[in-house]
Amino acid sequence: MAVTYELLNTCSYSRARRGRLHTPHGVIETPVFMPVGTQATVKTMSPEELKEIGAQIILSNTYHLFLRPGHELIREAGGLHGFMNWDRAILTDSGGFQVFSLSSLRKISEEGVEFRSHLSGEKLFLSPEKAIEIENALGADIIMAFDECPPFPAAREYLKDSAERTFRWLKRCKEAHRRPYDQALFGIVQGGMERDLRRESAEQITSIDLPGYAIGGLSVGEPKPIMYEVLEYTTPLLPKDKPRYLMGVGSPDDLFEGVERGIDMFDCVLPTRIARNGTCMTSIGKLVIRNAQYAKDFSKLDPNCSCYTCSNYSRAYIRHLLKADEIFGLRLTTIHNLYFLIELMKKIRQAIEEDRFLQFKKDFYTSYGYN
Amino acid sequence: MAVTYELLNTCSYSRARRGRLHTPHGVIETPVFMPVGTQATVKTMSPEELKEIGAQIILSNTYHLFLRPGHELIREAGGLHGFMNWDRAILTDSGGFQVFSLSSLRKISEEGVEFRSHLSGEKLFLSPEKAIEIENALGADIIMAFDECPPFPAAREYLKDSAERTFRWLKRCKEAHRRPYDQALFGIVQGGMERDLRRESAEQITSIDLPGYAIGGLSVGEPKPIMYEVLEYTTPLLPKDKPRYLMGVGSPDDLFEGVERGIDMFDCVLPTRIARNGTCMTSIGKLVIRNAQYAKDFSKLDPNCSCYTCSNYSRAYIRHLLKADEIFGLRLTTIHNLYFLIELMKKIRQAIEEDRFLQFKKDFYTSYGYN
Repeated sequence: MAVTYELLNTCSYSRARRGRLHTPHGVIETPVFMPVGTQATVKTMSPEELKEIGAQIILSNTYHLFLRPGHELIREAGGLHGFMNWDRAILTDSGGFQVFSLSSLRKISEEGVEFRSHLSGEKLFLSPEKAIEIENALGADIIMAFDECPPFPAAREYLKDSAERTFRWLKRCKEAHRRPYDQALFGIVQGGMERDLRRESAEQITSIDLPGYAIGGLSVGEPKPIMYEVLEYTTPLLPKDKPRYLMGVGSPDDLFEGVERGIDMFDCVLPTRIARNGTCMTSIGKLVIRNAQYAKDFSKLDPNCSCYTCSNYSRAYIRHLLKADEIFGLRLTTIHNLYFLIELMKKIRQAIEEDRFLQFKKDFYTSYGYN
Repeated sequence: MAVTYELLNTCSYSRARRGRLHTPHGVIETPVFMPVGTQATVKTMSPEELKEIGAQIILSNTYHLFLRPGHELIREAGGLHGFMNWDRAILTDSGGFQVFSLSSLRKISEEGVEFRSHLSGEKLFLSPEKAIEIENALGADIIMAFDECPPFPAAREYLKDSAERTFRWLKRCKEAHRRPYDQALFGIVQGGMERDLRRESAEQITSIDLPGYAIGGLSVGEPKPIMYEVLEYTTPLLPKDKPRYLMGVGSPDDLFEGVERGIDMFDCVLPTRIARNGTCMTSIGKLVIRNAQYAKDFSKLDPNCSCYTCSNYSRAYIRHLLKADEIFGLRLTTIHNLYFLIELMKKIRQAIEEDRFLQFKKDFYTSYGYN
């Protein structure tokens, strides 16, 4: 099997668990945060920099790469690993989410989804078979099944139909998968914010034996307490001996709340996106570096950080670079934010190992704030 | 003296010369190409990357830093070296050129130049004294005198007045200079494309004892043969025992033609600017990486290059990144172009040492082309 999961320990007072994913491109310590490299690059970063900050696995987007430069080209380049010069693990999503969030004029049928490219306007079609064909060409270690990610709010009837279609699509994905020996197919539980639909979906999805399972359809606009509630009742429905991936989630508090409820994997564009807007995550909370108060502040971004940015540059310099639209500024804030989340996850793993996760969470909220 | 020049050898059949500049931030082998870091950063690059490609000295712009973030802030940050985390040599221009090329509503008087900021529209004033005050605050190893850089073409009468004013301004610059012990002030020869005015200016400027001299007012739109002609008769007017800096020039052929005529130092935004547009300098000529012909080209940018970019990425990947507006693409082309020019200069130095400069130039033109 392309990916195997090893459960190391679970906390006494929460479902937080420490594990290990074995992949063809290295071992991943979980819980893990996966930086997003949408277009075969984590925005502003080099592979060496990603390794330096401790990234174990990155995510890339099937929808974007299908549109540009095309999966056949990437296959010829030796897959995503060869194309982008990254020799650690990669996960690709299936394009399902982007078809629904980025493209226009979607037409959903049992067969798949017809949509228009957000780049060229060209009419395109994605189906379970096509998505897996693309993901097989991209060659990531973990590939996601083609699903439908409904918006929030959505009618119960629609959510039910959609989750059932996602289940039927999963069976077709597994059937179409040509590289099960070196690519692990994960199924995605849907069902919106409806408890019984989540249960139904989880039962269906886990009835297919797969190396991992994801929870999709969250962080789509619902209030955070609702997301936590869905996690609360959904993760126990997933097998203990398989990794659990919460898709598209990555704010510090969501990582804590997800881990507490038994999630092992997270991804989100948040740290890199807000970095480019000049918002930095620090041990004492968010810091908007463009603010005038930092103009003559020669201290480091985060007093308790030892990333490349904090080791070498002042708030004043970083602010200057961002105000002057200099790319190096975006590099510095991106490095810092990713380092922050990856280090946070490292500390979370240690806290789980030492069975003091809930205390660590409390301490973190006290210094960082909750938002 | 902040900077001393050591002449190592001169070629037999040209004025190409091999030298060494000793500065407070290291020894610079000449002839040298200086990457431009306008706003206290060489666009897209980290200091470590600049060192890795062999940059010995970089240039930064007084005009831009005066406007933003302000020289007093940079003084407080420990000067440009501390502010931007660069411990090798720096040269700052005087702002003269930018006042004339970027700002609007200039009013030139004997006292200095009144102008409007191209950022805020604010009315500002630069004089020899003010420019040197700013450059003293920035703390570069080499600082340029405040001069007037006339456009091309310009009336002879204007060029004459302007060059004489530049001479009077130079005397005021020297008078105002507060850090001669660790910052070397260079004077700038003007005089447009008029042979006798260049002679007059060179005589005036070199009558002031300074650690180095520059030729300004070239590469301002005149045909290349005219620039070469001006160099042909101007460099011999500069003292042999001082470094000679040709300002704002940096295409490969201009480097050869300048070196051949006795120039030691060059700077130009060309390699970094064209890199961001996707034009790469290679041993076999310019390559426009966005062209469709490179879409499936998995070879490296330059078959004869061993820079980070060429060692790890294909033309197809770089093209994809640029087409997708990904910052990492700009980093890769910038690294390559700067490495190309810096390596070229290294080879030029070796050719001068071995007294085969003209042959090397001929070989280069044959493979790269002349443009």
